[in-house]
Amino acid sequence: MNSADQYLDLYKKELLNNVLPFWLTHSKDAEYGGYLTCLNRDGSVFDTDKFMWLQGRQVWLFSMLYNQVEQNTEWLDFALHGASFMEKHGRAEDGSWYFSLTRDGRPLVHPYNIFSDCFATMAFGQLYKATSEPRHADIAYNTFNSILDRQTNPKRQWSKAVAGTRPLKNFALPMILCNLSLEIEHLLDAAMVDALIKDCIHEVMDVFYDEKSGLILENVAPDGSFVDSFEGRHLNPGHVIEAMWFIMDLGERLGDQTLIERAKDLTLKHLEYGWDSTYGGIFYFMDIKGRPSQHLEWDQKLWWVHVETLIALLKGYRLTNDEACLRWFEKVHDYTWQHFKDAEYGEWYGYLNRRGEVLLPLKGGKWKGCYHVPRALYQCWKTLEKIAVKNDGGAARRLNVMS
Amino acid sequence: MNSADQYLDLYKKELLNNVLPFWLTHSKDAEYGGYLTCLNRDGSVFDTDKFMWLQGRQVWLFSMLYNQVEQNTEWLDFALHGASFMEKHGRAEDGSWYFSLTRDGRPLVHPYNIFSDCFATMAFGQLYKATSEPRHADIAYNTFNSILDRQTNPKRQWSKAVAGTRPLKNFALPMILCNLSLEIEHLLDAAMVDALIKDCIHEVMDVFYDEKSGLILENVAPDGSFVDSFEGRHLNPGHVIEAMWFIMDLGERLGDQTLIERAKDLTLKHLEYGWDSTYGGIFYFMDIKGRPSQHLEWDQKLWWVHVETLIALLKGYRLTNDEACLRWFEKVHDYTWQHFKDAEYGEWYGYLNRRGEVLLPLKGGKWKGCYHVPRALYQCWKTLEKIAVKNDGGAARRLNVMS
Repeated sequence: MNSADQYLDLYKKELLNNVLPFWLTHSKDAEYGGYLTCLNRDGSVFDTDKFMWLQGRQVWLFSMLYNQVEQNTEWLDFALHGASFMEKHGRAEDGSWYFSLTRDGRPLVHPYNIFSDCFATMAFGQLYKATSEPRHADIAYNTFNSILDRQTNPKRQWSKAVAGTRPLKNFALPMILCNLSLEIEHLLDAAMVDALIKDCIHEVMDVFYDEKSGLILENVAPDGSFVDSFEGRHLNPGHVIEAMWFIMDLGERLGDQTLIERAKDLTLKHLEYGWDSTYGGIFYFMDIKGRPSQHLEWDQKLWWVHVETLIALLKGYRLTNDEACLRWFEKVHDYTWQHFKDAEYGEWYGYLNRRGEVLLPLKGGKWKGCYHVPRALYQCWKTLEKIAVKNDGGAARRLNVMS
Repeated sequence: MNSADQYLDLYKKELLNNVLPFWLTHSKDAEYGGYLTCLNRDGSVFDTDKFMWLQGRQVWLFSMLYNQVEQNTEWLDFALHGASFMEKHGRAEDGSWYFSLTRDGRPLVHPYNIFSDCFATMAFGQLYKATSEPRHADIAYNTFNSILDRQTNPKRQWSKAVAGTRPLKNFALPMILCNLSLEIEHLLDAAMVDALIKDCIHEVMDVFYDEKSGLILENVAPDGSFVDSFEGRHLNPGHVIEAMWFIMDLGERLGDQTLIERAKDLTLKHLEYGWDSTYGGIFYFMDIKGRPSQHLEWDQKLWWVHVETLIALLKGYRLTNDEACLRWFEKVHDYTWQHFKDAEYGEWYGYLNRRGEVLLPLKGGKWKGCYHVPRALYQCWKTLEKIAVKNDGGAARRLNVMS
């Protein structure tokens, strides 16, 4: 239905006119600092706990927009508002980041979750680009080093697994390091970044890759082999697809077209595998042997899965010209905008049931904040711009033709 | 549609002819001992991990049937088969029970979960009644004492909550102690049982009871007050209703008709509150302020919620003659048998989506085993027998009239 210019306009305006104002208006905690992220459909607050994942992601998002889109001081101030709360209250004595705090900053949940640290690193790394404040760089750098230190035991003393019986490693950490390595490249020495990137790509594309099925697993044995257990059979198509655009970014940086082609192929493969041919949308979780999942939410349609897919498809098209990416983009775009976008209030819905009906009317909660939707809108907007420039209008025609 | 005699017949035959044969046929691990509980619709095995909750519950179930229904040596042998695996592999060095083991008995998940110990206590307490084997009594007795020792810190070192910030206690332990106190009464001294029963009843009926709403909360402050947080607002109607028949059992033992009436009233209150007026069935989780749940499975219909409700309604009717219990029994009976029973293969489905469609076709998994369905069929059968005897046919007519 849309030309590339129309898509571009849609993504850009949705970001700037609907989604950002939602968070700027509703999520600032003027009283205690930081952000309130548990927001109802209309932006009213339904819970005041503060989750470090979401505080860090929101600081990152507004810093990134300030750095990449426009030096809008409202955005930088908003990022600093969150960062200052994080600095003051977010860390345990050993410097690792709590999982959650009360509204006034008292620790609620121990630093059991390494991704709190990942998002804090992203936040302060990106913020430092805007402020040049050495303190911000230090926080990012020190947190990043502590992530590397604990990467073989990310859950620390809170891990319930008996060591040695069935060792497994999880896809999420190497996957996020693919993204983090570029995010904080400016703080690390070049040799370290090169080694890190090489290692992440190997983990994501080889170690977690299952030859037999051609799919990427969520949990594997330390040597990368398949483990026939609930965890070993577990697939998360959206997670893989998100990783594939991180890999495409790395491929572009390295000038490695083979890597890019493979990431694009794996995007399409997992999208085809995860697509619900009955009701549309992408399943949240699957089992590689088709066995019952241990996750009751397996058939739900989650916002982040769909918006990350849009990014991967546009990047895949831009970097490989594979028209299958465009065909899928239009299909996933239609599903996503029809089901997740809320015509009345800025931010999008997050949780739909299998049929695409709203399951939880929240706009933000314990796991959903100011991150995937605005990041995807930004990434799609910028990628569509590059497509238009590269093809000198050709892609615009193509997108029109394909619809 | 049914008279009491017809219901009685239905519940009894379903237990003896369909459900028990399913587990006897499919769940015995003849090679490594214990039970295989991850079973597909037809009973075929889809995973071989062994979860201590489910091993203990199955030992308990077959021991209980041997003790209460018929001294069938196949049942006792089957219970001993599981008990011997548990004895050999189930405990850590400190005597607490692992959460899960590999098929051959190597520990997978640490003893972080106190309910593994609760079900082990029930298992060996009930088994001892059948075997008079002192070893079985010792295991039950020692495990029970360790539960009491750790009841203020049930998750031990694996608790992620920072101590002191927002102390909460959970309903599940006092609730299960209501049941456990009667289950292992034969192993404890009378004064201890009396004190324990008094304490459990107080916890369940007073401490977790929220005056304002008239509902029982899942998590409260140590003094029983409401905490406005995700955990504090969380409601689990099925859990409360299950607790209410434990309370009715205690009320009957104590001859406390006031307590019984209150438990019956709370059963009806939570059933009305939790009933899905759009699609039928009882919601899994709710929020006392109607706010979005943090649990994505909140609107699903789970087997145990429904079969526990059937027990509570029949006991409520038997002990109070409140006809509202009968009206609801027929409604919940119809929903439950129409949606959870599998016409082809013995054991029932466990997980339905909000509309009552099968969400996971498994008959047993990580959390569903040989427990709620057969226990409920047994409890309903025996309660219907008592109703028939007490009313000398009156209830039979009544059930007929109400339908």
